[in-house]
Amino acid sequence: MSEEFDAVDVIATKRDGHELSTEAISWVIDAYTREMVAEEQMSALAMAILLNGMNRRETADWTAAMIASGERLDFTGLSRPTADKHSTGGVGDKITLPLAPLVAACGVAVPMLSGRGLGHTGGTLDKLEAIPGWQADLSTEAMRSQLEEVGAVVCAAGSGLAPADKRLYALRDVTGTVQAIPLIASSIMSKKIAEGTGTLVLDVKVGTGAFMKDLGSARELAELMVGLGQDAGVSTTALLTDMEVPLGRSAGNGLEVAESLEVLAGGGPDDVVELTVALAREMLAGAGEQYADIDPTEVLADGRAMDAWRRMIAAQGGDPDADLPAARESHEITASHGGVLASLDAFAVGVAAWRLGAGRSRKEEEVQPAAGVTIHAKPGDALRAGQPVLTLHTDTPDRIERAMAALDGAWEIDSSGSARDHPREVILDRVAEP
Amino acid sequence: MSEEFDAVDVIATKRDGHELSTEAISWVIDAYTREMVAEEQMSALAMAILLNGMNRRETADWTAAMIASGERLDFTGLSRPTADKHSTGGVGDKITLPLAPLVAACGVAVPMLSGRGLGHTGGTLDKLEAIPGWQADLSTEAMRSQLEEVGAVVCAAGSGLAPADKRLYALRDVTGTVQAIPLIASSIMSKKIAEGTGTLVLDVKVGTGAFMKDLGSARELAELMVGLGQDAGVSTTALLTDMEVPLGRSAGNGLEVAESLEVLAGGGPDDVVELTVALAREMLAGAGEQYADIDPTEVLADGRAMDAWRRMIAAQGGDPDADLPAARESHEITASHGGVLASLDAFAVGVAAWRLGAGRSRKEEEVQPAAGVTIHAKPGDALRAGQPVLTLHTDTPDRIERAMAALDGAWEIDSSGSARDHPREVILDRVAEP
Repeated sequence: MSEEFDAVDVIATKRDGHELSTEAISWVIDAYTREMVAEEQMSALAMAILLNGMNRRETADWTAAMIASGERLDFTGLSRPTADKHSTGGVGDKITLPLAPLVAACGVAVPMLSGRGLGHTGGTLDKLEAIPGWQADLSTEAMRSQLEEVGAVVCAAGSGLAPADKRLYALRDVTGTVQAIPLIASSIMSKKIAEGTGTLVLDVKVGTGAFMKDLGSARELAELMVGLGQDAGVSTTALLTDMEVPLGRSAGNGLEVAESLEVLAGGGPDDVVELTVALAREMLAGAGEQYADIDPTEVLADGRAMDAWRRMIAAQGGDPDADLPAARESHEITASHGGVLASLDAFAVGVAAWRLGAGRSRKEEEVQPAAGVTIHAKPGDALRAGQPVLTLHTDTPDRIERAMAALDGAWEIDSSGSARDHPREVILDRVAEP
Repeated sequence: MSEEFDAVDVIATKRDGHELSTEAISWVIDAYTREMVAEEQMSALAMAILLNGMNRRETADWTAAMIASGERLDFTGLSRPTADKHSTGGVGDKITLPLAPLVAACGVAVPMLSGRGLGHTGGTLDKLEAIPGWQADLSTEAMRSQLEEVGAVVCAAGSGLAPADKRLYALRDVTGTVQAIPLIASSIMSKKIAEGTGTLVLDVKVGTGAFMKDLGSARELAELMVGLGQDAGVSTTALLTDMEVPLGRSAGNGLEVAESLEVLAGGGPDDVVELTVALAREMLAGAGEQYADIDPTEVLADGRAMDAWRRMIAAQGGDPDADLPAARESHEITASHGGVLASLDAFAVGVAAWRLGAGRSRKEEEVQPAAGVTIHAKPGDALRAGQPVLTLHTDTPDRIERAMAALDGAWEIDSSGSARDHPREVILDRVAEP
């Protein structure tokens, strides 16, 4: 690695609005990994990138440098193709849980490295850990053999994938530099490319409960990530999906497992089923022609997806027949007057679930498997006065008051409105070209 | 101090182009001083300030918070008024040396806290340390009694003044955030206001050898600093002065002391004399009506300024009669052809002097008291082929080659030009209003 670069010069280049060369990006990420570029230098660079941007070429170089900072998995020797899904995070987003076994049941292997939640959106590992016995940590070898035998694995990302990204992500979190689209895109894509998947479908959430609040910035992020994936030889598409309203009828770890089981049993909320099936179709189409014609709804309906779920959970020590934990305390919130639910704010529901114990504020915190919010009415549903809108669940009743405060003004009941048969659109757009 | 702020929120406010409140600024500087805001957070904030700016009110609050981070000297009990000068740094800028005793000889006390050089511009303390025996470090009490008895003191700033600025300056140096005008202005002004001077004159240099390369940004900085000083009750004005060409006929520590002695003896280069007298007039005018009519040229001519110099040097252990050190090696550079010197680049001469040993790259380095450059011709001077242009001085002859490299193309001789009687303007403008 050339040593002709200097951290201050690299920072000054971006500060002054110029392009960073491939060599400069490669140097600065490598030097940061080796702790030759200090945290305070990287944070100044991150702020300059946030404010002055990086173009597609720079972002691709940044992503490649992140990948090069660690190991890269390779599942090309597997007997079936691989496909993965990444969501930018939303409230009630339990889609991974039915999706991974559904796609596996269609014959495509799903190697899904996932994370824990921080803030108002839950983490997939937190949800699965509500299942007694289930273990998130697998060696690469165990992951490979589970993929071959079961076809799906959801586990914790090891520290060896894109380690520079891991440090940079923690740094961005404390320096107000999370919201830089090139850094968000390269952070997601470096991990997903290093993970070795052949096909990748991105679920980019849009709305109050999501990181991206408007369709324009969500589309910009989606197009950038699709381009980065395709450049790296990964068949990549994206769906832009609604996150003004929580997904499904629950937010919370164990509650979302229960709702996922309904979907795997052929039922479940319409929006969760619709999104699960749409993402499965994308993954199957990317995996090859012979999978493109499989109808995921049939695989859900006939129990094959449920069978794959049971094998997937059992392979990681979980008991698929165990009872899910129940919260010690519940509190029902009812409609003050009759009408039609006009809105239900995803962010408010996410914060309420978090405060009830479903999420954490710091990495070190434990989550409560049974805490969360049950959603009895979604926008478009008719409500009579006194009918339940939400139920709050927690093991620590003193948290209910703060959860209630988060929900203040979180929904509107239109007393003159009429109920809608078809709820709002879940899938807003599809992005297949960078 | 309120704890309702959060570092990420403060960073995000400036990142998103909003104003920082007085309370937010006060909190973030105080928390940084107490190490509750991390270096990487402050560097992200500094980059956001550099790129999104701070208005006058924010910069005044930032300056006040820097002052509040440490102690503040108070010379109001002194029997005479106080006046100080700050220069933004230039090549051959030895003005402090004749100026401080000159103003003291006019009856105004000069409490000058100064620094050491870093990079291509020398530091006043490095220059005075070329005088055998002279000591830069004084207690506040010793400073006060020297001010009362001698009328002038140039000494090292203690660590108690604006300690937050000291840390922030070091941080900005490694994070590419030096060039933020609000941060430059508040850094200079917080130290000068904390120093307790009643009058302050700023010498803002403009040109290749200076930090500010163009008149517009120099004026912006000068107006901002004048406003900050006046807001804090310090009578503040600024001169914008040329730094395309080195000041005087020498750059280097002992060489500049020798040139200053010429000025104090009533001679010396025209540009050094002109600037010294102009800055003295500003300081005297700020100190009060009874000083405004004193003619500094008379005080230089009749030896009173030299007497004050001798007392000032002796009070800090220096021997005003000691021989100044001579360099072991000298190297003369001559004109390749006859004509008139059309230009002489200040930055190149500064870098040459630095490389010869007059300056340092890191704080820990020692400087050579005798190293530097003697300037035989200034722009407008006629030169014959073979006549000396510069002489390089150093104790380490292996440095001459790198100094020569810095001087490559540093001057032009116009073979068809005619000599000018009046050299270029030294004083470009005066700023008395914010």
